[in-house]
Amino acid sequence: MPAQRPRGVSIQDVARAAGVSRQTVSNALNAPHKLRPDTLERVTALIEEMGYRPDQSARSLRSGTRRIIAYTTPETDPDNPNALMSGFLEAMVAAAGEAGYRILLVRPRPGQSKARALEDVIAARTADAILLSDVLEDDPCVDYLHETGFPFAVFGRTGPGRPQAWVDVDSAQAMIDMVGLLSSHGHRRVAYLGTSAALPWLRHREAGFRIGARRFGLAGHEAFVDGLDEVVAVARDLLNRSPRPTALVLDDDWLAPGAYAAAQAEGLTVGADLAVTGFNDMPYTRLLQPALTTVRLPLRRIADALVSRLLQSVEEGAPPEAGLLLAGDPVLRPSMTTLA
Amino acid sequence: MPAQRPRGVSIQDVARAAGVSRQTVSNALNAPHKLRPDTLERVTALIEEMGYRPDQSARSLRSGTRRIIAYTTPETDPDNPNALMSGFLEAMVAAAGEAGYRILLVRPRPGQSKARALEDVIAARTADAILLSDVLEDDPCVDYLHETGFPFAVFGRTGPGRPQAWVDVDSAQAMIDMVGLLSSHGHRRVAYLGTSAALPWLRHREAGFRIGARRFGLAGHEAFVDGLDEVVAVARDLLNRSPRPTALVLDDDWLAPGAYAAAQAEGLTVGADLAVTGFNDMPYTRLLQPALTTVRLPLRRIADALVSRLLQSVEEGAPPEAGLLLAGDPVLRPSMTTLA
Repeated sequence: MPAQRPRGVSIQDVARAAGVSRQTVSNALNAPHKLRPDTLERVTALIEEMGYRPDQSARSLRSGTRRIIAYTTPETDPDNPNALMSGFLEAMVAAAGEAGYRILLVRPRPGQSKARALEDVIAARTADAILLSDVLEDDPCVDYLHETGFPFAVFGRTGPGRPQAWVDVDSAQAMIDMVGLLSSHGHRRVAYLGTSAALPWLRHREAGFRIGARRFGLAGHEAFVDGLDEVVAVARDLLNRSPRPTALVLDDDWLAPGAYAAAQAEGLTVGADLAVTGFNDMPYTRLLQPALTTVRLPLRRIADALVSRLLQSVEEGAPPEAGLLLAGDPVLRPSMTTLA
Repeated sequence: MPAQRPRGVSIQDVARAAGVSRQTVSNALNAPHKLRPDTLERVTALIEEMGYRPDQSARSLRSGTRRIIAYTTPETDPDNPNALMSGFLEAMVAAAGEAGYRILLVRPRPGQSKARALEDVIAARTADAILLSDVLEDDPCVDYLHETGFPFAVFGRTGPGRPQAWVDVDSAQAMIDMVGLLSSHGHRRVAYLGTSAALPWLRHREAGFRIGARRFGLAGHEAFVDGLDEVVAVARDLLNRSPRPTALVLDDDWLAPGAYAAAQAEGLTVGADLAVTGFNDMPYTRLLQPALTTVRLPLRRIADALVSRLLQSVEEGAPPEAGLLLAGDPVLRPSMTTLA
């Protein structure tokens, strides 16, 4: 426990002990280049020794910096949280922390739009910058933030001609690489089981599958599901197409338990008769029998890039000019099969 | 998108439009009882119409209220986040949001203690209250926060004779209830597979198992593991004790995959020859084959109780005098077996 209680120490106390003005103490913290080196050293040593801390609420009136990034974290089920977004948040807390910033979680009030919640954050000067995730290509919040000139960045991506302050996984390339991995394991007939929701990252994965199948000269079927109750039936249907696929490429890990059940119902053994691959490397994929080959998102690299872009906007006032695509990491596990 | 841009509207603009002083506009927001009802109504309508929002950084200097709860979220692996604590955070964001508060995530800097990070939060007036989790019974942060008089609450519990600003699950009672559930399904011989780490919640579960076994007159063996690589061997050893148990009671869901593997190695079928029960209802327990009977923590009720206690401290200055234990929810799934 700290021996000194900081709230007893004022800027006046430090100034008196150092034999300088309050302004000099303030300069030591906020404009050190204005002081002579020996003065700076003496005052800084006393600030540390006496445990003085400036009141951030007064300080922020001057500098406008709170060292807080507001993040509109997506809503999830407390009894079954989205592990991907929980992992992303953890990576953001770590990356921001290393830069001396903290994450403030912003959730719109019931009936309030996300844009309105962001407006509140900006108007009340609650944060220095805003982080968005789960954006669609024409997300109005992106335009709103761009218009205000408030520093922001997006995990995800925005369409051409819009602000490009984003970092995302190159989902299409990751899917091309997955098809390449199947090709190099001897597969010639692959089937794609996708989710029909109109989410950009799902469409990038689908495009990647098509490009990959063409590039590696594989025969490919495709089918899409709307919800959990369709997965087994649609996967069984894919497994009965002619020519019969030797691999099921899923656009998201959540389809894997259903794909495994479909394989079992068709008398196929995943990892022996049939390869199954996923996307996202959700923690439960390691517990599936057999464990799932999938794509891991480089969450820490994504968070580092987002923090770097946010700080560039906050500290230099210059938003980044182009988005940044980072490669996914293929994770090879026993659901892969090698064909002769 | 909001049509009005709030940063263009100052308190002076509202005062001029309403034909009142700036102080009157300020009173409408901060001390409405000082105004005549018709003045209050006119000024409030203009504030809303013109989209004026007070600068929170100036406001907080007066009222001291930022409507922020700082939470020292535990560190986790971004590629495999702790679903229980992710779910708890989600429940806190929702519960705090309904009360008009936001959650600020505080992580000590590398080399910095948690207490020192909290000291920074208090000194810089970054938040109105602090939430702790994962505390041990003699956690020094609890004493530190109690001494400062800063509003705080704990998810977990503190020992007797210490500040009691906590909310926790009644783990012992939940385990007694689980043993009772096994008893009512015909089990007479149960074995407890526990984790040896000296964490208070694990010791409460262990105590609950012993009380339950005694209360329901069951024969009980116990064994403990230090790490993942021991689980299968120790579980197999328990299954070979005499008399052979018909149920394995786990002190945490993380032991379940190992317990299932041990059963398989012993030629037993979970859900038929052997019952297995867990604790925490981690999302993956629903994907195990068979799905695991376990105990769900009432995360939303816990979060509501914590927010209510935090706000009581912030708004009334009165910390709660006693901790609050909430019941866990047993979740019956196919890993339970019924004996004749």
